[in-house]
Amino acid sequence: MMHLHRDTRILIVGLGLLGGSYAMALKKKGFRCIYGFARRQDTIDYAFEHGLIDEGSAEVDEDLIARAEMIVFALYPTVLLKWVEEYGHLIRPGTVVTDVTGVKSCIIDPVTAALPAGAEFVSVHPMAGREVGGIENADDRIFEGANYIVVPSEKNTEDAIRLCEDLGRELGFARISRLSPQEHDDMIAFLSQLTHCVAVSLMCASDDDRLVAYTGDSFRDLTRIARINDEMWSELFLLNKDALLRQMDTFLEQVNKMRDLLADGDREGLREMMRISTARRSKFDKK
Amino acid sequence: MMHLHRDTRILIVGLGLLGGSYAMALKKKGFRCIYGFARRQDTIDYAFEHGLIDEGSAEVDEDLIARAEMIVFALYPTVLLKWVEEYGHLIRPGTVVTDVTGVKSCIIDPVTAALPAGAEFVSVHPMAGREVGGIENADDRIFEGANYIVVPSEKNTEDAIRLCEDLGRELGFARISRLSPQEHDDMIAFLSQLTHCVAVSLMCASDDDRLVAYTGDSFRDLTRIARINDEMWSELFLLNKDALLRQMDTFLEQVNKMRDLLADGDREGLREMMRISTARRSKFDKK
Repeated sequence: MMHLHRDTRILIVGLGLLGGSYAMALKKKGFRCIYGFARRQDTIDYAFEHGLIDEGSAEVDEDLIARAEMIVFALYPTVLLKWVEEYGHLIRPGTVVTDVTGVKSCIIDPVTAALPAGAEFVSVHPMAGREVGGIENADDRIFEGANYIVVPSEKNTEDAIRLCEDLGRELGFARISRLSPQEHDDMIAFLSQLTHCVAVSLMCASDDDRLVAYTGDSFRDLTRIARINDEMWSELFLLNKDALLRQMDTFLEQVNKMRDLLADGDREGLREMMRISTARRSKFDKK
Repeated sequence: MMHLHRDTRILIVGLGLLGGSYAMALKKKGFRCIYGFARRQDTIDYAFEHGLIDEGSAEVDEDLIARAEMIVFALYPTVLLKWVEEYGHLIRPGTVVTDVTGVKSCIIDPVTAALPAGAEFVSVHPMAGREVGGIENADDRIFEGANYIVVPSEKNTEDAIRLCEDLGRELGFARISRLSPQEHDDMIAFLSQLTHCVAVSLMCASDDDRLVAYTGDSFRDLTRIARINDEMWSELFLLNKDALLRQMDTFLEQVNKMRDLLADGDREGLREMMRISTARRSKFDKK
């Protein structure tokens, strides 16, 4: 059984915000064999200059893949799918492969299928991020207080799952848990994707520039995530389309209900919704 | 022309969160004649014990009303309307009367009509608050960085408007501006009321308690205001019904549009909405 230790050889494929933050956290913990792949040479240069990787390449370096005991794919979902299709056969048996993808049902089977026998894919969703991307914004503090969700498939071994959980602990996540792919995708559709839909819709609902001067913290908080990476989020939405459509419809029902209560002047009905909301929200305060 | 100075006699009617915070800010600035009315004697006791008022009463004290040069109504809108109907005649000519109400079109005319000739009502919306109410949560720091909007009517004199603007400066507001009642109510329907509708609807859209464990900052930020004072907010919604219904319908259009783009798998359409959102949101960052 493989244990995670400071000489475990970990290859991070994709040195963007998350990949870069993984590398930063592991190097700070004293890991000595952190490898990185990136598309652009200047990303690799930056990673070396800032001590984020021990070896790296802007090419797909077969030797590094062969040496890696763990591979972390820190790529957009569709880029990940393309990568394993093209290069998955280079991964050696015994390698534990993981990812950072925010959608799971559509990822686990194709990635698993693209790996050679003996290499194991344990899908993970680290619920951490920033509004800005790129390795120059990498920051391992984004893992503090955050959730790290392991989403095993039936094909996973307990050993490989545990190794990925250990990685989450080393990275500094506050809470490590397991969910099934369907549970994960429903949860993420509600908590993450629907909230982004709402924030974007709110920003699109007015083009009055004068509003800026009167904006309070409520509006700012509600629309902070409306600055959105359109390439990544449109992909995540479409990859989790069915779960997200269900959540959007449930949300639309509630807004329409509130609209009708208001139009009818039904104060007691409005208050009842507000009371339900207040009671539920109190459970979500940070402990 | 009246100038605001440390011996200006100011009566605050209603010592809740806002009234209490007004009193706290003015006492810290060295004002020596701050009077307070509250419904309950223990509120008055608390205000005295904490040095928030110089004189006060749990009754409607005619002598204090007569002595006041300025009266600030820090009451819920319907309570304010009832108060001036019942006691407005006690206010002396020359008194400048102001308020803290978050809706304006439905307030300005009736309050103005209830005052004796020579007393002047200048309506103000201080855009500050907390999720918790009551004098024990009063805190003058809520005014730092906040907007203070003066909403004059055609009946106001420039002198009385300026006096109320001076009050905003003394309280420590960051930005003092003027809007017409209609401009104010449309703006507030979008920036404040719609955001509360959205947060409440989002909380009402799921009763899955397991979600709490996976909640990230996005969801917490988006629903912070979903803990809502149902008595106050249902009143504010209904008092600004027409403007709020317009804003809700515009928002619903945008959510439905995004829903249809997702259902159609229209990635470019989704990205376009996200780009609009990102560009607009960037204007709302705190300077």
